[in-house]
Formats: sequence, structure tokens, C-alpha cells
Amino acid sequence: DGPAQRYRLVVAYDGSGFHGWQKQHPPDGEPLRTVQEVLDAALMNLLKQPVITLGASRTDSGVHALGQVVAFDAATPIPVQRLRLAINGRLPADVDVRSVDVVPASFHVLRDVESKQYRYTLWTRDARPLGIRHMVHACGFELDLDRMNDAAARLVGTHDIEGFAAAGHGRETTVRTIHHCRVMRNASDPQRIEIEIAGDGFLLNTVRIVAGTLVEVGRGQFEPSRIDEIFATADRRLAGPTLPARGLCLEWIRYGKEATEPRSHQATEP
Amino acid sequence: DGPAQRYRLVVAYDGSGFHGWQKQHPPDGEPLRTVQEVLDAALMNLLKQPVITLGASRTDSGVHALGQVVAFDAATPIPVQRLRLAINGRLPADVDVRSVDVVPASFHVLRDVESKQYRYTLWTRDARPLGIRHMVHACGFELDLDRMNDAAARLVGTHDIEGFAAAGHGRETTVRTIHHCRVMRNASDPQRIEIEIAGDGFLLNTVRIVAGTLVEVGRGQFEPSRIDEIFATADRRLAGPTLPARGLCLEWIRYGKEATEPRSHQATEP
Repeated sequence: DGPAQRYRLVVAYDGSGFHGWQKQHPPDGEPLRTVQEVLDAALMNLLKQPVITLGASRTDSGVHALGQVVAFDAATPIPVQRLRLAINGRLPADVDVRSVDVVPASFHVLRDVESKQYRYTLWTRDARPLGIRHMVHACGFELDLDRMNDAAARLVGTHDIEGFAAAGHGRETTVRTIHHCRVMRNASDPQRIEIEIAGDGFLLNTVRIVAGTLVEVGRGQFEPSRIDEIFATADRRLAGPTLPARGLCLEWIRYGKEATEPRSHQATEP
Repeated sequence: DGPAQRYRLVVAYDGSGFHGWQKQHPPDGEPLRTVQEVLDAALMNLLKQPVITLGASRTDSGVHALGQVVAFDAATPIPVQRLRLAINGRLPADVDVRSVDVVPASFHVLRDVESKQYRYTLWTRDARPLGIRHMVHACGFELDLDRMNDAAARLVGTHDIEGFAAAGHGRETTVRTIHHCRVMRNASDPQRIEIEIAGDGFLLNTVRIVAGTLVEVGRGQFEPSRIDEIFATADRRLAGPTLPARGLCLEWIRYGKEATEPRSHQATEP
């Protein structure tokens, strides 16, 4: 099979049917259905060897991805340009490998991340979302986007973001750099409001807490300056609620000059 | 409660979790989950009286609706402008009453239909549809829209449409008028191809068979003139396959001058 090589996959999924990215094998019980579980099973079935994948982002239960990045090492005679279809042929309908490439053995899928972008989608239409209800959060308030963007702009920069983290995040350092944060209407459906945020990393539930805080600003409960107070105090209680996982999507992860972002963002994918 | 009035609802649903519109009570077994079943239960719970709804279109299992029209008679003290929220509060997340109005007792939801519009959505992107996979048919072919529109134009007019009907449609007359039929790219996602068709009525599976036939034309298997041959012979075997229910959505139903169509079509609803 030749020497082992390091492969990198860009993986999209509809998170609604998964208990998140990461494998979970309860001591007494069946393994939970996770993206890593079904992906590892597909790779082992294809490559006829044990495969251990590493994902760049440990997305939670119900969170979607357009551009999760996954690495693994294997020796295989299958040419890289045929791997994508071969893996997809072994995956269920709610996961899709979007690209496969070979990377140097020095590539580290976690350590080498330069930035990640998430999108949180709010549904403000009076009518229920129905067929896309597992991909949006129906928030039920009128939102002032100017106020939200004033607050969003205050998030940008290097700060201690612990006030925007769930207890038990387990990270020693809580300083992160947010590269941009914008609130906008979806081009094809102006009553879908999207919060786009990119940074070099986030803590547990950070994007969902940021979204909950921006909604409070947008409906007039918080002033935009609340962001500064949360940074100054690192007090989670000053921030808004953690919004549901279903509105959240991991859009892309960048590694140095290389980008794994999809060529064009389609609002309705995944 | 005052005298009984006739109410008309416009109802939207994600058909994926339903065995179609119509109530189905197997002789030995639980009633199947249908839209009529959950709607009647919600109305009876709200109005504290038996309610028998009549739907304008008996959509099949898995078929979606933005504008199903439903009528029922009831005596209730609830003002019509509060009925929509009261009913929706008793409905599951995959059904949504979009409007309620009072109509004359002479209004007949089936007999008075002037035209109905359906949309069939084809997914031609190489990547899988994921989160909207229950609302599109991934067809896997390159499609020539000019050829498809040539064929679509031949459908318009008054014809015997039995060649585009599943066996067992059970209708005595099979002549229907198709008002328009167009094939177009979705404005926000050009790799989603939509077949829009309106007419005064259709037979069992007609729109799904029309869609299957237009796909065969679009990928070069049939000539556009195949439509004329199917009309001339009424031979189902000359038409294309019945495409899956999931790509189909009942968009609106028109009654005379009144329209029940939603104000703006959002491609990703329901």
C-alpha cells in the first residue's frame, strides 16, 4: 500500500442527527451516533485498516458544519482524487466529504488553525420555519441590526473571552482574538438574520453566548457597551443566554495561507 | 358560541414527518400521523367540539405545502384574528397555519378551486444537500434548461393528461388544463433547478411524473416532442419515472379572484 500519508478532509454535516463531532462511548451502553464515529467507520471500511481521525473543532450536539477539517494517517493505494467519492459512498446522507488532499506529515489539524468562522442564524419571521427548523433559531423578537453591529464591532480584537464561555470549558488560557463579527440579513431571505464571527479560537459555547448577547442588544434589553463590561469583568452572568445549537454552523477553518472555506457560501447548506 | 361559520385556513407543512394530508386509520392499528390528523386534533382541543376539516389537495406522504387550503364549519366565540395563534399553539413544529379567514357558507374548498401551483426542486450540485435533503431530489445529471423549457411549454393547455398519471388515480375525467409550466434556476442557488407548474387540477403523481419526464428531456434521453407523444397516446410508459415525493411542494391554490398564495415565495420554505 505504499508509505503512510497524512490526509486532510473538509467535511460538511447536518448536525441534527448527531451527538456532536467527537466519539462518545459510554462505559455501559452503545456508542452514541457522532460524526467522528460514522466517519471512522466509513474510513475503516474503505481502507481495511484502523483509522484514527482528528477533527479541528469539537462541534456540539446539533451544531452543523460546512467546513469541519479532519486529518488522519493511512497507507492506501487509492489515488487522492478518487478518495472523496469512495468515502462518501460509505457515509450516511447527513455527512458529506467536500474535499480530500494530502498534507505534509508536519501538518497538525488542531495546532495549525489560523482562524475559524461560525455563523449563527436567527429566524425573525412570524411564520414558523418548518423544513429548516433544525437549522435556525426562531427568536421571536424584532431586532435592531445597527445596535447589534455596534456591539459586534466591540467584540473584535484580542480579549479575555471567559465571560462568553460556559462553566467547565477546561481551557487554561481564555484570551482569544476575534478577527471579525458582523450581523446581516440573509440576501435571499431578509427575515433571516445571520451573525458571522471569525477568530483564532473560541471557548465552550462562546458563539452561542455571543449570539444570545447580541439578541439582547438587538431587542433593546442590553446596551452595546455591555460587551465591554463582559470583557472587563469576565462575568458570564452579564452576558445573554446560550442560544440553541441548531442555529450554529462551523463555516470554515483557515490554515496559514491555505483556506478550506467553500467556494461560495450557500445560506441553506448544510 | 353564536351561529356556525365556515372558516378557511392556509396551512404550510414540512411533509417529511407525515403520511400525507389525509387521515388514515388502519382497521387494526394506530392512526397514521397525517397533517389532517394533527390539525383536527388541534382544532378539537381549541374549539371543544368535533371538527371535520376538508383539504383542497390530498398531498402524498413526504410532499410539502406552503399553501394547502383547508375548510371547516364551527361555532366559536374566538375572534378570527386570534384564531391563527391559538391553533398554532396547539400544533407541532412541522405544521403552521399561515392565515385564517371566514368564508361564505357557499364556499367549497374542493369544487371552487380555480388553479393550484406546485414546485418540484432538483438538486444538481455535486455535494450532497444535507440539511435540506428532505426537500429536494438530488438528480445527479447535468440538465439542459432550454430543452426542459421547450418540453414544459408543450404541457401548457387543455389535454388528456392520463399518460402523466399513476395507475389507480380513480378519476373519471382525465382532461385538465395546465396554465403554465416553467423550469428555472433558484435565484439564490443556481444549482437548484425548480419546475413550477400550475393548472386547474392534476391526477395521482402527475407533477412527480412530469418532473421525471422533464429530467429525461434535460439530460438528453427524451426529445421535447415526447410530451406531445404522451398526450397523443396517453401511454404512461412513454413518460419518465415518478420522482420522489420529497422534492414536491404545493405552493398555492387560487379561488376565483382571491389568491391564497404567500406574499413572497421563499425557496427554502417550508
